[in-house]
Amino acid sequence: MRSVFHDQLEQISDGLVELSRLASEALGRASTALLEADLSLAEQVISDDEKIDALRRQIDNDTIDALARQQPVATDLRQLVTTLRMTSDLERAGDLARHVAKLTRMRYPDHVLPAELHPTFAEMAQVAEQMVLRSGEIIATLDTQGAAELKAQDDTIDRLHRAVFGILLDERFHGNTQLVIDATLLSRYFERYADHAVSVATRVVYLVTGGWNDDIDPDDRSWREHEAVAPHEVPRSEL
Amino acid sequence: MRSVFHDQLEQISDGLVELSRLASEALGRASTALLEADLSLAEQVISDDEKIDALRRQIDNDTIDALARQQPVATDLRQLVTTLRMTSDLERAGDLARHVAKLTRMRYPDHVLPAELHPTFAEMAQVAEQMVLRSGEIIATLDTQGAAELKAQDDTIDRLHRAVFGILLDERFHGNTQLVIDATLLSRYFERYADHAVSVATRVVYLVTGGWNDDIDPDDRSWREHEAVAPHEVPRSEL
Repeated sequence: MRSVFHDQLEQISDGLVELSRLASEALGRASTALLEADLSLAEQVISDDEKIDALRRQIDNDTIDALARQQPVATDLRQLVTTLRMTSDLERAGDLARHVAKLTRMRYPDHVLPAELHPTFAEMAQVAEQMVLRSGEIIATLDTQGAAELKAQDDTIDRLHRAVFGILLDERFHGNTQLVIDATLLSRYFERYADHAVSVATRVVYLVTGGWNDDIDPDDRSWREHEAVAPHEVPRSEL
Repeated sequence: MRSVFHDQLEQISDGLVELSRLASEALGRASTALLEADLSLAEQVISDDEKIDALRRQIDNDTIDALARQQPVATDLRQLVTTLRMTSDLERAGDLARHVAKLTRMRYPDHVLPAELHPTFAEMAQVAEQMVLRSGEIIATLDTQGAAELKAQDDTIDRLHRAVFGILLDERFHGNTQLVIDATLLSRYFERYADHAVSVATRVVYLVTGGWNDDIDPDDRSWREHEAVAPHEVPRSEL
């Protein structure tokens, strides 16, 4: 027979899976809004972010309640502390989706991006959205193999992030300064969004394998990318 | 007579103050390196980031140890959970300082920024560095008034962030695309760094006043700024 406490832990885990689903849906919609200059979809993402924030609060409250009432130790304590970190990652991922939606709304009725940047951003959006959805499955199944997959997908994101800079820096590209600023920030938002999926998956690995020191900085890869954006370093094949 | 547990809590609080000092020092040095194209200082910031990460791990381990051994409730539990969030903020602030240093190193021996952007970035760096240092004082003294000061300083950061975009978008500005990308990312790093100081201070307020729901998103202000960067909206006085 399962204890009340383990039912609580399962409920918390279910909440995390739902949070990742909402964050994934938010980016999917924000990306469609971005690429189609769809104002009402952008507005929906912006207002729906409150649902993500509310669910995050609820999970955090349940987690802290479990810490206070159940006085857990060992694995259970680790799971609860890790939960607080994962809710933070997923809520932040939702914020980044909202940023994409807000930029879409700001530039409406114009498209934020010119057609030549659409394929790269469309692919980045699709991969990033899938990554956060996958992070939810990894939480549900404690699938440590899945974390390795997510890191591989993050390499794809890094390549696409570089490709955005490559397009902007190409001499054949003639966008104005506002567009360069917008594309730079957008690309950074997608890249950070994907980082949060990797963080969640890495925390699951630490949870399962028993380590504590999950001071993850997937963002550091973004610098390797950025280092690679000096014009002479961008492979022609990526332009 | 104080309990062992309260000595532990005090030691954890001291650790947080030191962590904020290190993160503040990192940004100060990174900014000097940026503005003076000082390679060895940039290298120092990059290598010293390990000290920040190590201290963060130590505080997190001590905090989790206290959760496991002392089974705290009420205020003590809140302090420990809040600590885990603050270490995350301060470590991330340190990462952003390292990003500034890495960009400095990448462009060396060139300066990353042209002279006309130096005053704005110098002011942004000084205010942001002070904010994280102040967040440490706020932790040490549980000074809820200090949080309000930090929010006011963050408005200054937002104004300077807007000013950077204003300069980039001004027709008199003739930087190349790489410079626009670099300046956009740098400005975003400083702005996010300052956000983490506000997060820390806001968490102290929640800790003192008893709330749990510190789902802080100071970053959202960055969007109001960004919304204001459309050329026609940037006040001439900020150019």
